[in-house]
Amino acid sequence: MARSPETFKAAQNIDVRIRHEVVAVDPKARRVRVVQLDSSREWWEPYDDLLIATGARPIVPKVPGHDAQGVLGVHTLESGLRARKALERLKPRHAVVVGGGYIGLEMAEAFLILGLDVRLIEKAPQVMATLDPDMAAFVADALRAKGVTLHLEESLEGFETKGGVLTAVVTDKGTYPAGIALLGLGVRPNTDLAAEAGIPLGVRGALRVDRRMATPIEGVWGAGDCAESFHLITGKPFYVALGTVANRHGRVAGTNIAGGRAMMSGVLGTAVTKICSLEVARTGLQERELQELGWDYVSETIESRTKAGYFPGSGPIHVKLLAEKRTGKILGGQIVGETGSAKRIDVVAAAIAGGLTAEAMSNLDLGYAPPFSPLWDPVIIAARVLSKKIGA
Amino acid sequence: MARSPETFKAAQNIDVRIRHEVVAVDPKARRVRVVQLDSSREWWEPYDDLLIATGARPIVPKVPGHDAQGVLGVHTLESGLRARKALERLKPRHAVVVGGGYIGLEMAEAFLILGLDVRLIEKAPQVMATLDPDMAAFVADALRAKGVTLHLEESLEGFETKGGVLTAVVTDKGTYPAGIALLGLGVRPNTDLAAEAGIPLGVRGALRVDRRMATPIEGVWGAGDCAESFHLITGKPFYVALGTVANRHGRVAGTNIAGGRAMMSGVLGTAVTKICSLEVARTGLQERELQELGWDYVSETIESRTKAGYFPGSGPIHVKLLAEKRTGKILGGQIVGETGSAKRIDVVAAAIAGGLTAEAMSNLDLGYAPPFSPLWDPVIIAARVLSKKIGA
Repeated sequence: MARSPETFKAAQNIDVRIRHEVVAVDPKARRVRVVQLDSSREWWEPYDDLLIATGARPIVPKVPGHDAQGVLGVHTLESGLRARKALERLKPRHAVVVGGGYIGLEMAEAFLILGLDVRLIEKAPQVMATLDPDMAAFVADALRAKGVTLHLEESLEGFETKGGVLTAVVTDKGTYPAGIALLGLGVRPNTDLAAEAGIPLGVRGALRVDRRMATPIEGVWGAGDCAESFHLITGKPFYVALGTVANRHGRVAGTNIAGGRAMMSGVLGTAVTKICSLEVARTGLQERELQELGWDYVSETIESRTKAGYFPGSGPIHVKLLAEKRTGKILGGQIVGETGSAKRIDVVAAAIAGGLTAEAMSNLDLGYAPPFSPLWDPVIIAARVLSKKIGA
Repeated sequence: MARSPETFKAAQNIDVRIRHEVVAVDPKARRVRVVQLDSSREWWEPYDDLLIATGARPIVPKVPGHDAQGVLGVHTLESGLRARKALERLKPRHAVVVGGGYIGLEMAEAFLILGLDVRLIEKAPQVMATLDPDMAAFVADALRAKGVTLHLEESLEGFETKGGVLTAVVTDKGTYPAGIALLGLGVRPNTDLAAEAGIPLGVRGALRVDRRMATPIEGVWGAGDCAESFHLITGKPFYVALGTVANRHGRVAGTNIAGGRAMMSGVLGTAVTKICSLEVARTGLQERELQELGWDYVSETIESRTKAGYFPGSGPIHVKLLAEKRTGKILGGQIVGETGSAKRIDVVAAAIAGGLTAEAMSNLDLGYAPPFSPLWDPVIIAARVLSKKIGA
């Protein structure tokens, strides 16, 4: 939001056209059909290279009342502002969050801070699908301790309204009063336009791209939440909608389009989030994925402290590590704990990138001082326990 | 301090003798001369294996007044308690810290929190000898901003006293009023006893040990701040007095003495510390060491933010990375910044252990969310800038 079309033009000679929509792509003729939204003028615009960066769109179930006032999503700055305005206007007492992923949990925090009564509905038997069930259970416990009423294995069926305004959320198991409802059901790649033009789609409907971010269609590139990545460990196409990955996509695509040479590196789906003082982090493969791959793996979960036990502000932290059984190589990690927990996942991500075994990871020389860590950093303790299990 | 000799005996069948001093070692006869301090009884005690874990002792310059009341060191729990008692008794207004290393800076923090006027004297042209001068300059700036009066390139000459109580600290450049003075001049290995017994010493007078923590003398082992380590990058003997390393020493020595097999892994001298909200961290080789080794290296320092720039509590962070010029491999890193900075050094330590190049490090998939990091973690930004320099 910080730069205007004029700034782009002046600073980088980029001709940004806002209020223009591309309604069709003609890759054979290398042109796109453009509609100028304010004038409704329409024309074919030629291109040498086309970058499709259409992002992802939130999943909105078309249940009764889904378009009522008070039913919100937060997927753009504008939708965030709309949510805040709705809160100011409707002054709700009861908030219902539908979906226990990153957005759902972060919005649960926001509602808690605002002093609302918060209920969270999740279809799956656990929150945070990107965690294994045992680690997700720690998140669920912490949410309950912070005052969130959790409804797992419960499906949204609709919204009750009065005069077009939300009054309750209806699931297959109950009806809950709600002055505001937040949909956090995830996103899907925004690739309808590409699909209509015959541009091949891959994992979860994302644009199929190579490591240069080129689609199989000459002159057409993809980047961001609408495009695939490659997994660092499996090397296979992989879809993840994260800002870090989208940003890398854009750099790689841009470099190649501009005549340079860049390759997208593998991704691990590393993600961190916080809900009040609870921090949640994950990287690499999780048990479900390893089972699908049929890989033999071992895992261990330890509990430790974020700082030296006697230091003010020290809190509990749970670290789970997964490693390949045959080689001992670290395949993934998950962390749930109090303040100071989440960014420890970066050491796991670096260990995976370096091909470290659990044993090598247990020998990492990490920083210790009482305000920052127990003598043995929790990720080292986890690696040591896992290494012993592999050795045994 | 948590366990009594009785507990050791009951829980682990370890016969702990407190108030016993070993005054001589006779490695040929495999025996030690023991003095029972309370009875002055003395005898030769036989051993199969001898572990020397005599630690390090603080360097105390024998300048006039060094034993005055109010001149303190903090190297044991007892000396820490003595320091607190002295502060309560003497109620000083002016504190002088002699030495700008970890202990000196952490005690400067303590004095600042107590509301004292704090002056720090350092002989070298920089504080924190384990940092390169450019990074140490950020620490110096922050110390001054927090109200510490810094005296660099100034040497301690003595202490003025009145009735045996400290009144001022005298250097080669001035005399400063002081109700309390803290010596933080580093430590040296406590190896006189070993040296007298003909047990060979190595780097900086520490016990020469192999990777099993065995000294060259049959049946004699060394561990902790009195013993050498091996540097992970150079493979050479290396001395560093850090709790993490001492703890590993003990495990390895203990395992081998008990008939198991363990090898000490290489160390990087990773260390983190905080002075109020300022955090300082380092790992691996620094410029001085690389110059001594004659290695061709490149380095880059970047400034970024600890969190997304707009997030409450976001503060500045400086990250310096060093890499081998020929291979691009990361050799060291240093970080100075506000809350949330220090433990990012762990990613650098893991990258070094994994043999990552600056380019590979710039591709790490680290966690991002606004409360934890800018979109690009500062260590990734540093790796990218360094990688470009190497590529150019």
